[in-house]
Formats: sequence, structure tokens, C-alpha cells
Amino acid sequence: MINLKTAENIPYDRVRAVQWEDDRLSLIDQRLLPSQTVTVAFEHLPECIRAIRDMVVRGAPAIGITAAYAVVLAARDRHRADPAGWRRALLPDLEQLAAARPTAVNLRWAVDRMRHIVESATDADPVARLLAEARHIHADDIAANHRMGGLGMALIEPGSGVLTHCNTGALATGGYGTALGVVRAGVAAGRIGQVFADETRPWLQGARLTAWELVQEGIAVTLIVDGAAAQLMRQGRVRWVIVGADRIAANGDTANKIGTYGLAVSARYHGVKFMVVAPRSSIDMAVASGADIPIESRDPAEVLSYAGTRTAADGAHAWNPAFDVTPAELIDAIVTEAGVVRAPTTTAMHALMGL
Amino acid sequence: MINLKTAENIPYDRVRAVQWEDDRLSLIDQRLLPSQTVTVAFEHLPECIRAIRDMVVRGAPAIGITAAYAVVLAARDRHRADPAGWRRALLPDLEQLAAARPTAVNLRWAVDRMRHIVESATDADPVARLLAEARHIHADDIAANHRMGGLGMALIEPGSGVLTHCNTGALATGGYGTALGVVRAGVAAGRIGQVFADETRPWLQGARLTAWELVQEGIAVTLIVDGAAAQLMRQGRVRWVIVGADRIAANGDTANKIGTYGLAVSARYHGVKFMVVAPRSSIDMAVASGADIPIESRDPAEVLSYAGTRTAADGAHAWNPAFDVTPAELIDAIVTEAGVVRAPTTTAMHALMGL
Repeated sequence: MINLKTAENIPYDRVRAVQWEDDRLSLIDQRLLPSQTVTVAFEHLPECIRAIRDMVVRGAPAIGITAAYAVVLAARDRHRADPAGWRRALLPDLEQLAAARPTAVNLRWAVDRMRHIVESATDADPVARLLAEARHIHADDIAANHRMGGLGMALIEPGSGVLTHCNTGALATGGYGTALGVVRAGVAAGRIGQVFADETRPWLQGARLTAWELVQEGIAVTLIVDGAAAQLMRQGRVRWVIVGADRIAANGDTANKIGTYGLAVSARYHGVKFMVVAPRSSIDMAVASGADIPIESRDPAEVLSYAGTRTAADGAHAWNPAFDVTPAELIDAIVTEAGVVRAPTTTAMHALMGL
Repeated sequence: MINLKTAENIPYDRVRAVQWEDDRLSLIDQRLLPSQTVTVAFEHLPECIRAIRDMVVRGAPAIGITAAYAVVLAARDRHRADPAGWRRALLPDLEQLAAARPTAVNLRWAVDRMRHIVESATDADPVARLLAEARHIHADDIAANHRMGGLGMALIEPGSGVLTHCNTGALATGGYGTALGVVRAGVAAGRIGQVFADETRPWLQGARLTAWELVQEGIAVTLIVDGAAAQLMRQGRVRWVIVGADRIAANGDTANKIGTYGLAVSARYHGVKFMVVAPRSSIDMAVASGADIPIESRDPAEVLSYAGTRTAADGAHAWNPAFDVTPAELIDAIVTEAGVVRAPTTTAMHALMGL
């Protein structure tokens, strides 16, 4: 792990959360944003796994892309160490990588795509083929985001206020963003008149990351505490809630950042529409419903402290699920690069996935 | 303003957020809890107004009691300066004090009670009579809280999990607490099996104050981020949401800490019961419905920062309403010292108030 560079003001169009450069994987350390923009380079698998687990990189699509490049690094090390037996040594690496975080299915999806290349590779150096596949995954993600931006934006009535949760922008993806891509496209097209963002405790991805991205884009953003969302809806100030996904089950149930489900309940109560924006790589047709999606429990310290300072009274406990599940019946539209599913059902999701 | 004492571990049974001692008003500076317990003494009105506005003291009943003692200080100063004309000088002081914060009606209620004494006082030194009235208000509040604890607790099925929001304990009142008084009584009686508390952004009263009080009482408490409440309800882990009130309108609509309304929406969706606990001094029969309750907007910096550290990107805006209004139709019970109103209506509220 090498600290590549520190720059206070990277222009937005140069921001890539995940990049392959100089034969290394480089990640913006998202834990330090917005006060510091530090890019860190990775050359070996164990540090990549740690970076995923510790949330140097986060956001389901960005985790998937990171994993793809991490397989390249792992294969390079294994091939250097044992040009004949690299494949056998690499397969357990892939399992370990896929288990780094449990909820975002893009992680396993990307590792599986890379494993297919590993399994079909000749015994010659596999790095070039694997790198090509990782770059393909990355480029596809960006293209999917732009496509989703257009499809999602088209659902929004001109001049609408919208509310988003967590961060689903360039930092959470290969570039451009999922839900935040729809926000960008909607603002550019004049369909979105005002953007509200939940600060998104405990990691404050909304305050730290979404606001940062939108400010860089010149899009005005108004932050609210997560508890203010229902009141905002009651006042009629938002017509759509637009969120991403960490995993979508075969029936449309959607796991996403903790707080999403409460927004969906509130949106339904107020007649506000609820949109999930995610690439097909976030859809897990092997999981029938949200009840079967594993939900990561994280360290209670994330709730009890902030930025290293203890805020809660000593002796207090905390419950810290990183995600919740929004049932399909509360979702008005799932937007993917392959099209929009309105009022999702298992049948509609099968059709979307071409099954 | 005199810094009376700093003690890291005041035993809980000695904790009084508001006290009259040594002819002065003393307040625990609640902005510093739980890391520091600092008690500050006040001798003049302007510092008292600032302390209310800056949230040295907070919680509707505690603000009311503070205001009552502040009137004693103001009258003493006015009488010392002009023993003949003190009353005329004092009346504008009372208006200024009543306007320190707009939402909690207990502030104006307490000032009005003190004004009656001022108006009926002889021209002789009024301090003794005013102090007696302030002590009366304080003692009545503690008695009301114990009564509400018993009434509210009786509504709860044995072994229930409950969720509370913000801080409504000894620190928010004259002592014991409103909603937290019900929690205490319910835990003592075995009716409450598990206590969850929202951290309550932006001021973190749940994490900083409620958890501190409960730890001191030996009651286990599990903190959650505000966004996790709906998921907690979905898992069936709470049967009652129990909250306080800053002002209750004549129809039962209730203004309380931002985030309360979203809890009520979520509770109704999940079949979880919703209880408001407040003394009659929080009920404003002059206001027909929640639409007429003034809602304080506070500094956006409270949202853009966390525990004194700027967290949001520069250039981001924030919307920071300190309170929201929960409509009566989402409230299952309003618990006061004079009895319980189930499914509140204007008629039932009039009956409660003896009107």
C-alpha cells in the first residue's frame, strides 16, 4: 500500500474512486473526504481486502470494480511466485475476497466474472487477460450509469424536488453514479428543481461524499439529518426519493444503506414516489426475497463515536446494521441499464434479466 | 455567569439539570455531556436567555423551570436598581425571556405564571414570593413526572421493547423525566424488557444525554442511528415508541424533536404503538392544531458539523428544523399527570384540561 498523492482540490471530472494506473490499483480513501483527498495505491490482495472491509472504498458497484482489479493483483503475485501452480493458489484468494463484505452482491458478481477468466486461462501469464476483463467491468459500469441516468430522469416530473440517501455517485461506482447519476441527469434536463440529501449516519456518506460531489458539479444541495426526511415529505418538498442498492432480490426487495427502508415507508405514507437505481450486477436472482439477503452488522463504535471521538455515554450499547431491506411493494420503479421495472415483481425481474 | 464546579462523576441521584442554590440559578451545561459535567451559576437575566437559546439547558419542562428562576433573578436586579419602578422595568424582560425559543410552550407558560405574581405583588421586594412560585413550578413538575411514569407504564405489555427519541429524562425536566420517566417506571415494574434510544441528530441528545442517564440508573440501553428505527420496528423488537413533547395543540397534534414524526409514521405502518408523555404545561389550548405551532429553524452549521467538527463539504447547504409535528391521528396515547388521553381529539383534550 503506497500513499500516491494528496491533493486538496481534485477537479471533479478527474475524480475516480477506483482506478488502475501504473500497474497498480488506486483508491481514493473515502474515509477522509471531504477534508482530505488522499489517493492510495495497492499492489497486493490482502490490503485490497482490508480496504474493502474498512470502507476505504464503498458503494456496491465501486466495491465490485475494486474486487476485479484486486484479482489482477492477486493473480500477478500468484503467477510470479509459482508460474505453474498459480491457478490453484489463486482460487482460495478469490473466496477470501468475495467474503470481504457480505451484503453488496456486486462483490461476488465481479469475483465470479474474474474466476471465469481464471478458469479458462492457459497456464501462461494470465495478467493481461484479467486486466482486460477488469477494465471491461469498469467501463461497462460507467456506461450503465449514464444509461440509467437517462432512464431514471425520464420518470421525474419537471421541477421536482428529490431526496437521496447515502452516496451513489462517482465515488460509489465506476463513475457518474447510479441514483446520483439520475440526479445529475435530472438537474441537467431541468426535471429536478431541488436536491435534498440525507446526511446518512453513521458514516455520513451524504454529508461527506454526496454533498462533495454535487458541490463539485455546481449542483446546489441541501443536507438534512436523517430524522428530518418525513417532515420534508409532509411539506410536499420532494416528489421522488432516489436511492441505490447493495443487492436486489429476485422479487425486487432491495437491500441498501440503513435508513433506506424508513424513507420508503415515509414516502408511501406521503404519496412520494420511490426509485431504486442499480446496474444488473446488483441484482441477485439466486435470492428469492429480501429475507435471504445477509445484512452486515458493523462495529457498535461507529454509532457510539464520531471521527475517533466518543460521543455516547460510556456503558451504552449500540445496534449497527449497515443495511436494511426495502420490500418491493414500497418501490415504484427499479431503474437498470436494461430498462425500468415499475412495481417490481418476480416475473418482471425475470423478464428484465432475460430469464 | 459563574462556573460553579466541574465534576466528572456526579452520582445520578444528585443530578438536577436546573437548581436554585446559594441565591443563584445553576444549570448543568448539557452541551458538554457526557464527557464533562459542568455546572454553571447564573445571577442575571441576559445570561439566562442566552443559556436557553444556546441549549445549555434544553427540554421543554426544564426550559420552563429555568425561565421561572430567571424571572426571580430579573426581578431582584430590577428591584435593586429601582425599588419603586421595578415592575414597569421587569415586564419587557419577561417578554424577552418568553421569546428566547419559540416552540416549547412551557417557556411562555412559566413566564405567564410568574407574571401573575409580578402583577399581584405589592411594591415591596417581590423576590421571596417569586422564588416560592418558581420552586412550586419546579416541585410540581417532578411530581407530575412521577405520576406520568406510573400512568404511562401501565399501558405497556410486560416484557416489551421500547424506543425513545431525544432526551426526556431528569436533564430535560425538573427531575425524573417525562417519556424517560415512563421508561424508568416500566423497567422497574418489569413491563419494559429492552430500551432502544435514537441517537437523535443533530444534537445527539439520545447518545449524549439519554444514554448517560440510563447508564447512571443501571438500565441497559441500546443506541441506534435515527435511520435504523424503521428496521428495528420491522424486526418486531419494539412495541411502543415513547416520546416527550415541546407543545401539544388543542387537537392533540404534538410538536417534538425533529425525527419524532417519522417515528410515528413508521410506528403506524408496523403496528407499533406511539405514546406522548408531557405535563399539562406543554399543552397549548390556544393553538387549534399543529399547523399553528411555530417551528424553530436553527443554524445549518448544526447539521453541517458533528461534535464540533465540520463534516459536510464546503458549499453544501442544510435545512435544520429543530422540531416536527406529529398529527394526533398517529398518536395512540397522550399521557399527562391528569390522566391519559387515548386517540386524542379536541374534545378529549378539552376534557383533560377541565375546559
